[in-house]
Amino acid sequence: MRDFSADHRWLSMNTATLRGAGRLDAIIEACARHGIRAIAPWRDPVAAIGNERTAALVRTHGLELSGYCRGGMFPAVDAAGKEAALDDNRRAVDEAKTFGAACLVLVVGGLPGALAGTPQSKNLFAARNDVRDGIAATLDYARQVGMPLAIEPLHPMYAADRACVNTMEQALDLCDALDPERTGVLGVAVDVYHVWWDPKLEAQITRAGKERLLAFHVCDWLVPTRDLLEDRGMMGDGVIEIPKIRSWVEAAGFAGYSEVEIFSSRDWWKRPVDEVLLTCVERHRRAV
Amino acid sequence: MRDFSADHRWLSMNTATLRGAGRLDAIIEACARHGIRAIAPWRDPVAAIGNERTAALVRTHGLELSGYCRGGMFPAVDAAGKEAALDDNRRAVDEAKTFGAACLVLVVGGLPGALAGTPQSKNLFAARNDVRDGIAATLDYARQVGMPLAIEPLHPMYAADRACVNTMEQALDLCDALDPERTGVLGVAVDVYHVWWDPKLEAQITRAGKERLLAFHVCDWLVPTRDLLEDRGMMGDGVIEIPKIRSWVEAAGFAGYSEVEIFSSRDWWKRPVDEVLLTCVERHRRAV
Repeated sequence: MRDFSADHRWLSMNTATLRGAGRLDAIIEACARHGIRAIAPWRDPVAAIGNERTAALVRTHGLELSGYCRGGMFPAVDAAGKEAALDDNRRAVDEAKTFGAACLVLVVGGLPGALAGTPQSKNLFAARNDVRDGIAATLDYARQVGMPLAIEPLHPMYAADRACVNTMEQALDLCDALDPERTGVLGVAVDVYHVWWDPKLEAQITRAGKERLLAFHVCDWLVPTRDLLEDRGMMGDGVIEIPKIRSWVEAAGFAGYSEVEIFSSRDWWKRPVDEVLLTCVERHRRAV
Repeated sequence: MRDFSADHRWLSMNTATLRGAGRLDAIIEACARHGIRAIAPWRDPVAAIGNERTAALVRTHGLELSGYCRGGMFPAVDAAGKEAALDDNRRAVDEAKTFGAACLVLVVGGLPGALAGTPQSKNLFAARNDVRDGIAATLDYARQVGMPLAIEPLHPMYAADRACVNTMEQALDLCDALDPERTGVLGVAVDVYHVWWDPKLEAQITRAGKERLLAFHVCDWLVPTRDLLEDRGMMGDGVIEIPKIRSWVEAAGFAGYSEVEIFSSRDWWKRPVDEVLLTCVERHRRAV
């Protein structure tokens, strides 16, 4: 297991962690000030400043992208909705390629309409079929472009509205089905927040193996957790044994960035960006 | 699958659903007014009116207990804490026996101290070992008394503070280990709120089988869910395919009550008890 205590060369900042800092250009410049070598941006803030400006900033600061957020959201109630999702995913693959991302992260989607608060179906089976078909179609395109897709199993509390793939086992079953040769173009993003509770986690990380462990995300589970979406904790402030989980992914061969992704409207988004970054660096060295 | 549309003979009221009605005697009398044949009371409200008064009310109204809530909470940081938990569980077994409950429901506990907001450990493995040992010890006593123990896998969002057993598979692995002969004294409580998201749910219900399916709890998953604990929905108001899950437990041989357990400080606990009961009866007939 790599020693993170001496520096933060393996720290990547998911830009959602710094949402309080405003536009993506300000966020990237703040990361550069703190010697961050990698980021993982979201599509909306990229769109707000444009692909070209984003690409120029990434180049200027010599940044890597540990991932690009996000593709997915495949389930829909009709063919037109499914096709629109596939179009959007192809654009996401293209953008990820433009920025040289290590992978496109897939938040696969839940029940159609649920994210907007108006579920149009209760059929999880249908949603999971849409997800399988959507990943299969996107994978064909991702292979041509050369952009790995990372299925992110989300915590089961998001099964209705964000992702109906909720365990590593389920994600890897999809990988086995859609990429049985383990070509490296389909794998998983392991976010400790989503999977820390899983009694089968270590076994499934071993099963994933180096070629399918495409991303590793960190934050912490707070006790109590006051909001299902935006009350994630800074590493070390919660109950997740992050170093233990990192030891498992590294034992399986993962050697990439630890990407800090903290949704925290109650706390970290309200703090000055430099304080957040200094804290992330310090916690990366002693709590990841 | 039984037809619930004509009456509510298989409806049981978990008394927590009626918390807004005050003391347990008022709750029991309201249930009797509405022709409810079974309840599942919690220990605190029972203690508030006393075991004798509770037993008398149960007898007077000819009520069955679909379960008694609850034993468990086994993990502790020291031997004294673990012993205290075992003592308390023996008392819970005795109370359940006094009232003639179908089973004692076990909410097994999470990280020591977490329920009080101050986790004293992050070690889920240790907590799970405490749970296994605690169930094993309680099971010895439960066998003597003749009171089945129902392990309730809780939704993974409660892994830290309430239960580190979070899937049916994990609960059944415990049953296999501790009661390999399937004597009927150890099984599971299937609460749709906790397990609806699980891609392996149907297979694990089948695996459980009739002798280990000791309780079936219903409510619904609201979209959006605004609170991790007290924002459960009335059956039919959320996205859980309750009849589908009931068809699975009945196909496996379950023929007991559907117990309505809705924690809802934002909505149902604020309403008149008769309105809540009328709604439960109506939804039991068409949405369970």
